[in-house]
Amino acid sequence: MASSSSLSPPKVPKELYFINREKVLNSLRQHLTETSRPLHGFVLLQGGEEQTRYCTDHLELFRQESYFAYLFGVREPGFYGAIDIATGKSILFAPRLPPDYAVWLGKIKPLSYFQEKYMVNMVYYTDEIVGVLQGHYKEPGKPLLFLLHGLNTDSNNFSKPAQFEGMEKFETELNTLHPILSECRVFKSDHELALIQFANDISSEAHVEERFKAIELDNPMQTQSVYISRVLPSFLSACFTSTYRIANGIYVLWFSAVLHYGHAAAPNDRTFEDGDMALLDMGAEYQFYGSDITCSFPVNGKFTSDQSLIYNAVLKAHNAVINAMKPGVCWVDMHKLAEKIILESLKKGGVMVGNVDEMMAARLGAVFMPHGLGHFLGIDTHDPGGYPKVITVEPGCYFIDALLVPAMENESTSKFFNHEVIGRFKDFGGVRIESDVLVTANGSKNMTSVPREISDIEAIMAGAPWPSNKTAPSNS
Amino acid sequence: MASSSSLSPPKVPKELYFINREKVLNSLRQHLTETSRPLHGFVLLQGGEEQTRYCTDHLELFRQESYFAYLFGVREPGFYGAIDIATGKSILFAPRLPPDYAVWLGKIKPLSYFQEKYMVNMVYYTDEIVGVLQGHYKEPGKPLLFLLHGLNTDSNNFSKPAQFEGMEKFETELNTLHPILSECRVFKSDHELALIQFANDISSEAHVEERFKAIELDNPMQTQSVYISRVLPSFLSACFTSTYRIANGIYVLWFSAVLHYGHAAAPNDRTFEDGDMALLDMGAEYQFYGSDITCSFPVNGKFTSDQSLIYNAVLKAHNAVINAMKPGVCWVDMHKLAEKIILESLKKGGVMVGNVDEMMAARLGAVFMPHGLGHFLGIDTHDPGGYPKVITVEPGCYFIDALLVPAMENESTSKFFNHEVIGRFKDFGGVRIESDVLVTANGSKNMTSVPREISDIEAIMAGAPWPSNKTAPSNS
Repeated sequence: MASSSSLSPPKVPKELYFINREKVLNSLRQHLTETSRPLHGFVLLQGGEEQTRYCTDHLELFRQESYFAYLFGVREPGFYGAIDIATGKSILFAPRLPPDYAVWLGKIKPLSYFQEKYMVNMVYYTDEIVGVLQGHYKEPGKPLLFLLHGLNTDSNNFSKPAQFEGMEKFETELNTLHPILSECRVFKSDHELALIQFANDISSEAHVEERFKAIELDNPMQTQSVYISRVLPSFLSACFTSTYRIANGIYVLWFSAVLHYGHAAAPNDRTFEDGDMALLDMGAEYQFYGSDITCSFPVNGKFTSDQSLIYNAVLKAHNAVINAMKPGVCWVDMHKLAEKIILESLKKGGVMVGNVDEMMAARLGAVFMPHGLGHFLGIDTHDPGGYPKVITVEPGCYFIDALLVPAMENESTSKFFNHEVIGRFKDFGGVRIESDVLVTANGSKNMTSVPREISDIEAIMAGAPWPSNKTAPSNS
Repeated sequence: MASSSSLSPPKVPKELYFINREKVLNSLRQHLTETSRPLHGFVLLQGGEEQTRYCTDHLELFRQESYFAYLFGVREPGFYGAIDIATGKSILFAPRLPPDYAVWLGKIKPLSYFQEKYMVNMVYYTDEIVGVLQGHYKEPGKPLLFLLHGLNTDSNNFSKPAQFEGMEKFETELNTLHPILSECRVFKSDHELALIQFANDISSEAHVEERFKAIELDNPMQTQSVYISRVLPSFLSACFTSTYRIANGIYVLWFSAVLHYGHAAAPNDRTFEDGDMALLDMGAEYQFYGSDITCSFPVNGKFTSDQSLIYNAVLKAHNAVINAMKPGVCWVDMHKLAEKIILESLKKGGVMVGNVDEMMAARLGAVFMPHGLGHFLGIDTHDPGGYPKVITVEPGCYFIDALLVPAMENESTSKFFNHEVIGRFKDFGGVRIESDVLVTANGSKNMTSVPREISDIEAIMAGAPWPSNKTAPSNS
């Protein structure tokens, strides 16, 4: 069946989270040594809790908090986890479930089950936290807890430090852990990379599958929701199970020129028509590790010359950035590189007129690409961090009235636009091409494997297989 | 394509929410009159807010709070809604979106858009609540606000009363609105019933589709997650769009004898094998109104004699309850009727021995069916209320060690069990059959249309069409 993937998910090595903990422990010990502080106390994190929808008993699908997932890999809600800085030992605290849980939700697992499953040194119940941590603390005075507190700069939300009854019996420290843990998350281990690669593989396969189906569209009056119901099942079936999840929302963009479509205020309810471009921004998540891939293509399977112009402008920027990426390269320079290539292509295509450097100085790049060039990727779609290790590269070119009209009316920038030609693009929407790229020692590796060249896309939409014979699959 | 539904969603009549508001207004006015209180003040509800996952910028899929959805039908987050009790006029308060919203999420809609879309008398911005409500209040003193506050007895959570800056300029009243609004939600209008019927129709179709695909299982070693990816896409494609949603979680139960499977601690990761029973509990939601349907079937398409015994016991209970339902019938009596029929069947099949009335007195019905017979259905899968109007009928029969072992070891109940025969059912799991039933003036109507008889299920799994020729579709 076409909607079933032939890819087998890799087994998650138990030592993955053990290695993550070791990395954080070493990094924290080093930092404490450098700041002349003693090597004792506990790292203490609180895992996520199950949430109900408003006042009802409708349970939202549980997803572990990402920092907790990174250190302990625990899939279940209601846990705490600690690392003893003095001994390096790891301790999980599991919720004590009521007996009738066994009737409704399955056998209650013994603590030894979690010890084995998550490869920690000890497991206790959450109501034993105070006694256990006090018992393991060999210093005089109150035991010291390093708690997670810090700003997520994407959301402007603070992570929530662990809380439990009896906290007054401990000293707490909020400033040290967050930057160390965040930086550890940026640099992925080989085990982590294998999971991200698999998330990329199934997402790549699903994206190709979408395109196969897209050409079956034969009734221009059918609505977007029907389109979604026809093109997304293979992607959903790859992602929406207990082991895979949809890492990022599914955004579908076309002539409306909206960067993120498909939310409550802009549902996927528009009609696709012959000649429209589709933009699918979707990625699966596997064992907490995500992918994030965007493909743009004409719904009827054939690029018009205008569509080719914009698509190739973005593709050229996408490829140039990936080729230029390596350790030490400045991300702002990459952003400028993408903007410049897109503006040059628009000029060549007659959309823009004049000197491209002057357009850059007038910030016209942001009129066509009003978002960042990419973001870190890992346990969160927008992973935290300071330095890239796995990063998305996602240049785009859009025709958004809210940005275009002011720039075209502005006295100093109006001259760069070919007003007549731009009229043709009024309902064009936009193109975005997004791949997940690993920065290696010498350069970079594209972990995403989908057809990008117009000739390949048109061939696949006409029924050709993928990977095609001339292109070997890039999966390692 | 098999995974695309041929059913067209009904247009949602704008007056649906207008009628809901009128019903609540009339009911509230009547109550105020009966309790000698003046007919002024405002009903004020706060809609749901968008939520991010923990500290990240990952937006959870927004779903409107159900009471707010009932009164205003608003799909977007961040709204307030009011009804002026003196005049009956309705007022929506929309969030004032920042200009860069237009770049990221689409054109900012004018207030007139919401006035037209939700058929309310007036729309203002949320930062105008204080002034607008004060301006419309014609009495001396602080304006009175009737806020929503009350216990959801399924979840034990309280609904959250509206909050806004400047509330100290109002009198608030927390006790009146919740019971009135909850009771109004129980009795569905024809418009609401049409939406519930459609949710049932697409869910029924999807359930049948699952079974068609189930027979394609040919490798007993494939895991449950693969099974899910093969059998669920048609259901997901019917549900997971902007207009349809999955109303309840997808629970799949089989030999593990877990009532609700597929949550974080018990993921769908077990292996289906030849001879196993599957239980699919799934329902789509359409325009806030839900469905909730369970089908049980053998994964290999042929019932064994033991499977037939348990399945027919549950089906007999399911049919008997639906036939007996009408206004005035006591739900506890229906529960007892279902238990008794199941115990009688188990006795006839040699699983139980002795007098069924004595088994009933010893509460053995609850050993095999440890859950309620059904629940109200509407905007929430477990809708609030006091009297049934649309209710699920979902008898089940399970072999759960946590219940069975104590009852079989108990001195006073041990004698009712045929210990040898029950041994055969150790890994059986359970059967549940669930339909959505409308209580009419004279009886009841089953809104769910899926094959229930063993002969029909086996025929469909062998490739026969549904609805079969002998059975006309029951959709009105």
